[in-house]
Amino acid sequence: MNPEDLIMISVDDHVVEPPNLFDAHIPEKYRDAAPKVVRKKDGSDVWTFGGSIIPNIGLNAVAGRPKEEYGIEPTAFDEIRPGTYDIHERIKDMNAGGILASMNFPSFPGFSGRLFAANEDKDLALAVLRAYNDWHIDEWAGAYPGRIIPMALPVLWDAEECAREVRRVAAKGCRSLTFTENPATLGYPSFHNDYWDPLWQAVSDEGVVVSIHLGSSGKLSVTAPDAPIDVMITLQPMNVCQAAADLLWSRVIKKFPNIRFALSEGGTGWIPYFLDRIDRTYDMHHLWTGQDFGDKLPSEVFREHFLTCFISDPVGVQLRHLIGIDNIAWECDYPHSDSSWPNAPEELAAVAADVPADELNKITYENAMRWYSFDPFVNGRTRQNATVGALRAEAGDHDVSIRSRDKGRFTKSVGIELGELAKNATA
Amino acid sequence: MNPEDLIMISVDDHVVEPPNLFDAHIPEKYRDAAPKVVRKKDGSDVWTFGGSIIPNIGLNAVAGRPKEEYGIEPTAFDEIRPGTYDIHERIKDMNAGGILASMNFPSFPGFSGRLFAANEDKDLALAVLRAYNDWHIDEWAGAYPGRIIPMALPVLWDAEECAREVRRVAAKGCRSLTFTENPATLGYPSFHNDYWDPLWQAVSDEGVVVSIHLGSSGKLSVTAPDAPIDVMITLQPMNVCQAAADLLWSRVIKKFPNIRFALSEGGTGWIPYFLDRIDRTYDMHHLWTGQDFGDKLPSEVFREHFLTCFISDPVGVQLRHLIGIDNIAWECDYPHSDSSWPNAPEELAAVAADVPADELNKITYENAMRWYSFDPFVNGRTRQNATVGALRAEAGDHDVSIRSRDKGRFTKSVGIELGELAKNATA
Repeated sequence: MNPEDLIMISVDDHVVEPPNLFDAHIPEKYRDAAPKVVRKKDGSDVWTFGGSIIPNIGLNAVAGRPKEEYGIEPTAFDEIRPGTYDIHERIKDMNAGGILASMNFPSFPGFSGRLFAANEDKDLALAVLRAYNDWHIDEWAGAYPGRIIPMALPVLWDAEECAREVRRVAAKGCRSLTFTENPATLGYPSFHNDYWDPLWQAVSDEGVVVSIHLGSSGKLSVTAPDAPIDVMITLQPMNVCQAAADLLWSRVIKKFPNIRFALSEGGTGWIPYFLDRIDRTYDMHHLWTGQDFGDKLPSEVFREHFLTCFISDPVGVQLRHLIGIDNIAWECDYPHSDSSWPNAPEELAAVAADVPADELNKITYENAMRWYSFDPFVNGRTRQNATVGALRAEAGDHDVSIRSRDKGRFTKSVGIELGELAKNATA
Repeated sequence: MNPEDLIMISVDDHVVEPPNLFDAHIPEKYRDAAPKVVRKKDGSDVWTFGGSIIPNIGLNAVAGRPKEEYGIEPTAFDEIRPGTYDIHERIKDMNAGGILASMNFPSFPGFSGRLFAANEDKDLALAVLRAYNDWHIDEWAGAYPGRIIPMALPVLWDAEECAREVRRVAAKGCRSLTFTENPATLGYPSFHNDYWDPLWQAVSDEGVVVSIHLGSSGKLSVTAPDAPIDVMITLQPMNVCQAAADLLWSRVIKKFPNIRFALSEGGTGWIPYFLDRIDRTYDMHHLWTGQDFGDKLPSEVFREHFLTCFISDPVGVQLRHLIGIDNIAWECDYPHSDSSWPNAPEELAAVAADVPADELNKITYENAMRWYSFDPFVNGRTRQNATVGALRAEAGDHDVSIRSRDKGRFTKSVGIELGELAKNATA
């Protein structure tokens, strides 16, 4: 297929929060204590909150950089693409990348708002969290209706308060809550504790998807202190499978039949093996472990409750029917280092060359719309002017070139590198 | 295909060590201090060594039990199948299960001999470890040449001594060393430390495969203290992928081009995704992480160094060419709870119904022979009398029925349950 004909919604991208995030949303009494951006002597910009200092990690905002310059050094706002923190620039970058809509996980608060939860002043923390959610929903997502799937941060330290916040943001149209892979490793009651029931009730009532991003347990897969970083990078997506197993066998799934989870940035190629494994585990062990899914297999239960997604996953695409064609979404991961922006449509088209159009539509946008109750076709947007080609035409001559840190100039290396791939995909 | 026509070598089974293990092998001066079996007041048998007490975990010896009675309670020798600890009975069980040859991981010492390593008297520990290896190679494997792939325990606490032990057992024909998934979690230098180089040199010189069994890191995947045990059971095979990543990106692979590892009980269905992941990680990141595999992809390097195996893995079988048809072996896992003994041939035949005979031969026995330099065709054994059918004919009326703990009588539930599967496989 021609990648320009695809309609693409990404269920996992990232926002680098702008310095003025809280200005219009924080109550006056908390303004001084709210998180702030400070420029350090080394030239990097950091967020500060309650004594914590959070750098902008370079690898989290490498979109458009030559790979030779990937790294984990702190960076300043003027070293990263404006599209990472400026919604108007972001929409231009999305257009240039052919992306119709996008869901954006947080950066400096942590995927589950751990930074806010760590503050001892819980009134302040709640005010900051609500201000963040209001900014994200009203300002970031609200600026361009139909382009950003709104997502809220959870009140990690109080399940009842979290339920209230879910109901509050749902009333504003937000149907996604970012949460942690494992509350237990963060020091909170585990998924197996009824502590969280008010939250599960709220998301069930409001049709909110609990979006669990890899790395949100606060525990990365580090095999040894002296292991190369490649080991950690390789193992990252596989962490999410721990969350999937934890939730699947938990009482949550059984007690809240409408609850839905998304395994964000988890990849899909491992899912068929995982489903075989849970069905075999059930068959071999449930008579003594006491698990009971009635007349269903665990793999069927999984498909009722879990959305998976991938960036570029040939194995997952090949095995899509073993995963569940209604359970797979696509993600771009802009502006992180796993992303192929702005050539992601070409990458996907190459990987999915043999997939029938109706199945590919589910993967590229229909499943995302249904799971997140999100409608991108507003304000005159139709399927005809929502394609990669149409959006790129809107982008016009928007610059997707590379800013090289060392050389202090723009280069054009991304695009060349995926040229062969793109050619094969459109052939 | 007819499962009776298969030739099957299992690269992962387990021995429950018999009480008289050390009798013929421990030097006289260490006889009193050597590990011993003691019967406890609750009727269970335990091994004792240097103040440690190691129960026979029930789930590790459930072969032939109804699933309702699986459990993790300690058991006594007279409650488990004699084939778990008596080599003559084991061979009869192998014949009844159609298994030509088998590699047996240890039980009470731990997969990497941790129990011996924990003893402060290192002279005693070494004497005990050597006695164990001599028993395993000369007595357990030696009793029936061509039926047991000999395997040695490592000297976990001393890499130089471990290298000497590898050379000593290799001279006796042993080409498999059981090792840990992660020495760092056990308190030893990691795979990234040159401490282990003498060992890697020895296994490279002697053509010994380092067999890494899941669970051998001393760290299971426990998501939370109150998580159901099903979570841990589900996640067990995925732990091995941490070891695969750790070793693949390590200096070991680069410095020792002939070194070979086996990922024992690790399953295969996740490997294609893993290989995509390492190739993508390499492509996206090697320019800044400094990884260098010359003109090879990480997936190619993986296939040069790693043997994988599965019990019953429809996804792995389907994707066998993405894994590497020369990198897959089969395992029975007798007498653990994941095993389908004595009906494993029928289970495999059902899963591999579409696999051409030459490929299936590689998976069921040829790859195991080549990787472990093992020849089962000795003492008049030919391919004709090595099949499942021929071995079952040798087994005659050997009893594979079930001993039920609660009812104190024999039942026949295994066999019935897989009856449908067997019928489909032979159809």
